[in-house]
Amino acid sequence: MLYVLLAIAAALIGLGTAAYYAFWVLKQDPGSELMQKISKHIQQGALAFLTREYRTVAVVLVVIAIAMAVFLQASGGIVMGIAYLVGAVFSASAGFIGMTIATRANARTTQAATRSLPKALEVAFRGGAVMGLTVAGLGLLGVSLCFLIFLFATGLVSGLDIVDGATWSIFGLSIPAMTVFSDVIPGFGLGASTIALFARVGGGIYTKAADVGADLVGKVEAGIPEDDPRNPAVIADNVGDNVGDVAGMGADLYESYVGAIVAPLALGALYLGFRGALLPVLIAAVGMICSAIATTFVRGKEGGNAGRALNFGTYGAAILTLAACYPLVMWLVPKGTVFGEMTVSNPLGFFIAIFIGLAAGMAIGQASEIYTSDAYKAVKKIAESGTTGPATVILSGLATGMQSTAASIVFLVVAMGVSFVAGDWAMANGGGIFAVGLSAIGMLATTGVVVAVDAYGPIADNAGGISEMSHQGPEVREITDSLDSVGNTTAAIAKGFAIASAAVTALAYFALYAEKVGLTKIDILDNKVIIGLFLGGMFPFLFSSMAINAVGRAAQAMIEEVRRQFREITGLREGVEGVEGEYGKCVDIATSAALKEMVLPASLASALPILVGLWSKAALGGFLAGVLVVGFLMAIFMANAGGAWDNAKKYVEGGVFGGKGSDAHKAAVVGDTVGDPFKDTAGPSMNILIKVMSVIAVVFAPLFTR
Amino acid sequence: MLYVLLAIAAALIGLGTAAYYAFWVLKQDPGSELMQKISKHIQQGALAFLTREYRTVAVVLVVIAIAMAVFLQASGGIVMGIAYLVGAVFSASAGFIGMTIATRANARTTQAATRSLPKALEVAFRGGAVMGLTVAGLGLLGVSLCFLIFLFATGLVSGLDIVDGATWSIFGLSIPAMTVFSDVIPGFGLGASTIALFARVGGGIYTKAADVGADLVGKVEAGIPEDDPRNPAVIADNVGDNVGDVAGMGADLYESYVGAIVAPLALGALYLGFRGALLPVLIAAVGMICSAIATTFVRGKEGGNAGRALNFGTYGAAILTLAACYPLVMWLVPKGTVFGEMTVSNPLGFFIAIFIGLAAGMAIGQASEIYTSDAYKAVKKIAESGTTGPATVILSGLATGMQSTAASIVFLVVAMGVSFVAGDWAMANGGGIFAVGLSAIGMLATTGVVVAVDAYGPIADNAGGISEMSHQGPEVREITDSLDSVGNTTAAIAKGFAIASAAVTALAYFALYAEKVGLTKIDILDNKVIIGLFLGGMFPFLFSSMAINAVGRAAQAMIEEVRRQFREITGLREGVEGVEGEYGKCVDIATSAALKEMVLPASLASALPILVGLWSKAALGGFLAGVLVVGFLMAIFMANAGGAWDNAKKYVEGGVFGGKGSDAHKAAVVGDTVGDPFKDTAGPSMNILIKVMSVIAVVFAPLFTR
Repeated sequence: MLYVLLAIAAALIGLGTAAYYAFWVLKQDPGSELMQKISKHIQQGALAFLTREYRTVAVVLVVIAIAMAVFLQASGGIVMGIAYLVGAVFSASAGFIGMTIATRANARTTQAATRSLPKALEVAFRGGAVMGLTVAGLGLLGVSLCFLIFLFATGLVSGLDIVDGATWSIFGLSIPAMTVFSDVIPGFGLGASTIALFARVGGGIYTKAADVGADLVGKVEAGIPEDDPRNPAVIADNVGDNVGDVAGMGADLYESYVGAIVAPLALGALYLGFRGALLPVLIAAVGMICSAIATTFVRGKEGGNAGRALNFGTYGAAILTLAACYPLVMWLVPKGTVFGEMTVSNPLGFFIAIFIGLAAGMAIGQASEIYTSDAYKAVKKIAESGTTGPATVILSGLATGMQSTAASIVFLVVAMGVSFVAGDWAMANGGGIFAVGLSAIGMLATTGVVVAVDAYGPIADNAGGISEMSHQGPEVREITDSLDSVGNTTAAIAKGFAIASAAVTALAYFALYAEKVGLTKIDILDNKVIIGLFLGGMFPFLFSSMAINAVGRAAQAMIEEVRRQFREITGLREGVEGVEGEYGKCVDIATSAALKEMVLPASLASALPILVGLWSKAALGGFLAGVLVVGFLMAIFMANAGGAWDNAKKYVEGGVFGGKGSDAHKAAVVGDTVGDPFKDTAGPSMNILIKVMSVIAVVFAPLFTR
Repeated sequence: MLYVLLAIAAALIGLGTAAYYAFWVLKQDPGSELMQKISKHIQQGALAFLTREYRTVAVVLVVIAIAMAVFLQASGGIVMGIAYLVGAVFSASAGFIGMTIATRANARTTQAATRSLPKALEVAFRGGAVMGLTVAGLGLLGVSLCFLIFLFATGLVSGLDIVDGATWSIFGLSIPAMTVFSDVIPGFGLGASTIALFARVGGGIYTKAADVGADLVGKVEAGIPEDDPRNPAVIADNVGDNVGDVAGMGADLYESYVGAIVAPLALGALYLGFRGALLPVLIAAVGMICSAIATTFVRGKEGGNAGRALNFGTYGAAILTLAACYPLVMWLVPKGTVFGEMTVSNPLGFFIAIFIGLAAGMAIGQASEIYTSDAYKAVKKIAESGTTGPATVILSGLATGMQSTAASIVFLVVAMGVSFVAGDWAMANGGGIFAVGLSAIGMLATTGVVVAVDAYGPIADNAGGISEMSHQGPEVREITDSLDSVGNTTAAIAKGFAIASAAVTALAYFALYAEKVGLTKIDILDNKVIIGLFLGGMFPFLFSSMAINAVGRAAQAMIEEVRRQFREITGLREGVEGVEGEYGKCVDIATSAALKEMVLPASLASALPILVGLWSKAALGGFLAGVLVVGFLMAIFMANAGGAWDNAKKYVEGGVFGGKGSDAHKAAVVGDTVGDPFKDTAGPSMNILIKVMSVIAVVFAPLFTR
């Protein structure tokens, strides 16, 4: 149990670092009165969204927790329900804390930009690091606490060995210890998934509804530039960056992170007893500490490259973590470790799995960059096709997105194949599956720093918006722009990483599902499995269409509200001194539209796995595989097509093919607008979809084996 | 053997009817001298394309046939190679005959339109019926001849019973009779697939390169209307309709048709001996005769509805076929039929499978109509979104396409599930898989009339082009336009049908593959299978991106040629009397670009299954499942999005949302341009992909079991 305390200590180190950065950020100069006022508006808007969202989620959480307690009573449903609620509350808290700091770091970054680029970089990055370290810290803390409590309660473990037949008596039930591992702890993961579903899908609809709505009325109809305070939707738009990219991405990676600990924990317990369960937890602990250390590597230099500074953090954390994992593996599961009929023969195999997982995450992220950065051919080609009109921009963007799936899939299957073979070499019978789980936690061990770098992006973006709205000079704007442009690249990489991590997490859950329902095979030649495969493959298409249409409808509501304000508030459009739009009203409309629009897709995503599973557990196996494969493809396709269009537009704005205002630019803007819901709503939803459906299958597995 | 002769007789009846229609069409008034001249250009262009294509294919065919003879020697590779070549030659002949008549029926339809609508409908439909009945007739004739020859050679059958241990001695080899069924006859199917690959992918690139090229230079740059003879690409464009929609669709359905006979034939032989092998052949024979009869139902009425007249043919054939299949099943595999350990207990189950296959084909076709016809909500919504610009048109079209996958998948899995359960009820052990094969031939039994209705479309389209180019009056143009618009609807339905038939054919091949390599399970929990599944799922995305990019590049070549001609041929652009574009040059450029562009995708499609299979036969199973599921989804998505954009544009042109020339119209044109390669190149390629990869796996299966 001492070892679990180590993990808790690591989590607390991460959280402590986050707290230090938070206070540091709050101590920075909050800027001029106008900057503070704008930042305040964004803070209030973000808070309003989160409050409304959490209020809605709370109802769902309670309903599901009760359902668990009732329907899964025999498998420790009540305890599972509690774990579920704790998982959700921890995730929601991480989102809340991260958002609170991020929306305060924005104006402070603008203010720092009046001094120097390194200073501004530092403020923005440390603001993001609060989110990153809180996400990882609370994730690890939550899982470790659950783990510790269960160990205490069951008396399952003595030293590093498992006690036969240990049970946990609670609420008049006697729960076998193994059930705690494979049933109750995944409940914690489902809590994270529920929050992620709302944050990612709801947040994704919100952010693009606000963005598209603000752009269409502001730029197109009223002819006022982006981030102009006369546009009443401008605050909603800036809130959207935080809601989508900070809270949404945070909840997404929180879910992956927790899943990547929980699933190998349960698999490890099955195959290697307590040592197996402990290994993923300690890998996460090591990664946590290394991430905290690596955040100190990120320091701007005058005239230096902000992107390189951020990369120091990312790669530094990765290298440190790997270096520390090797002795950890060799110590915890040395050659000759025996559990039941299993014997570890080559522990190096487990380390290889961890390594390959981490490498694959980085590689898939980098592949995203090649297809979405204007330093490479694909984006230039899309920009060039703007000279023959919007249709060719769309076609070449779609083709680029489709093509980009190949590289990512190859990296993913290589990682899967290598970790399976390495695991099988490490330990015959089950080593392969366990190793696939280890590659998931290998990929996600450095979540703290990955989310930090990602959350930096919207802070820099917001800082740019605030410098525009508060009428800063061009030299300040230049600094915030350069920070923002680095943020776009890191965002693309983080997106690729998020997708890859979702896939490996889902794979680990998938293996756990099969174990739990006692499926020794999921045979495609079985009629039910292939039917499940088709239905599962279809769902990401259906879900994407719902997400895209939802953005359209929500944006329409926003457009009408802005038009109303221009009509009814005299002087607003003309920018008369002292006249201000009803910013809160716009935030409100986007919030309620987003929450309303997500009801149907979210309900389907939650209900379908249960329905399919009740029909046939084999069919559910096929269904999950279909969702996983097609969801991954659609995620990559949409994220990269969207990112490529975005940067093709920016590339044209940089002055090529006629620059801003040319026909090529108009065509590129069409691509960018199509790409918005692709990359920020439908695409990221796929990550959640593939995880949430598989964790639901795991948690509700006892229903399918009756 | 008498029974096989019945099938041959049915095929000859179909071919005889086709010949009658062909002579009838040729006897019709070929129209004015100008009309004949234009038609002649189209004929020559189509012939030039086919000749070049077949010359390229011939090389590929010979190489593959030799490869078969060498690498599959032990499984009767030489005979298989011959069957392969025969299958290819039959398919190519069907394409040649159908095109020859279709390109002659076009001007005759225009001429008939100067008299009356019913007359014009009759000419166009009978022109299409030549293609339809030739495709089905030659398909059935080829398979039946192979079948008959093998029966003679092996002495396998006496009456309706199989002779144990029969072999075939040829080329110094002694081939077991069962190998003939499961190895050699599928070789015939692969021949059909090779032609289909070239005709569909090459034809698809050709038709859209010519279309987009002609439009961009003609309408946009030179400002001359569609189908204007001053545009040197105009003939290439009209040739494209024939190449893509007549020859391409014909080869596609020929492949499905042959596959839907061959796969259940082989499966039937395995499970039910000669009776089982005979059943799909006789179902096809029955469908052939009923289709020939049903073509006589299509008669126009003055003031009548052309669409309804065509539906009479389609549904008439379906009802007749079903009525005839019931007694056929009851007679051939009555209750109590015994083969090895299998006993038929409820033959009605087999009939149900045939019925559900036919019904699913129709249902998926109809679902396509709901998403692509302007009589329904989806298309109207896309048209309306044109009022907010091209980006919203694109987004709502993409969302519509994605959403439309749901209905089609549901119909498909219901058909699969019902036929499996019905087959299992009909005969325990293997009845289910055989019944899935029967549902494939059920769906495709009426191929003759389905292709006839489909080939009618491009003839009507061409007739419209010719009436424009030969300066006919508005009343003639009105008739050809109304025929054309019906053709668009029937084309959408036929597309849905082609996709559905590809899926069931591939499923039947998939089952046959598993049988042949002796896989008793394809387990998703097996690491290799899931890697195969991911790679297979990725390929349709990669292939689509290649197809879309190919169209872009080929269209660019076309644009440059047209610009050159406008520059170098004085008087062409101004329409000076007697000055004519070098039509042949444009045809030539589109032809060579299309053939060049298809080399890489076609080679990948052929080589990948073999490479994966050589690595692991289980992985190939996963790979085929991935290609099937994702290929089907992408086919539906792209076909329906493309069709919906096309009709949304036409809907706006009909006068709503500002009509022609409005901003909404311009936005809709962007959608239509994006949709072109979607619905006519990449989308239809998916049909071929899923079939060709699975038949390659079947044919080269002996390599994977060594």
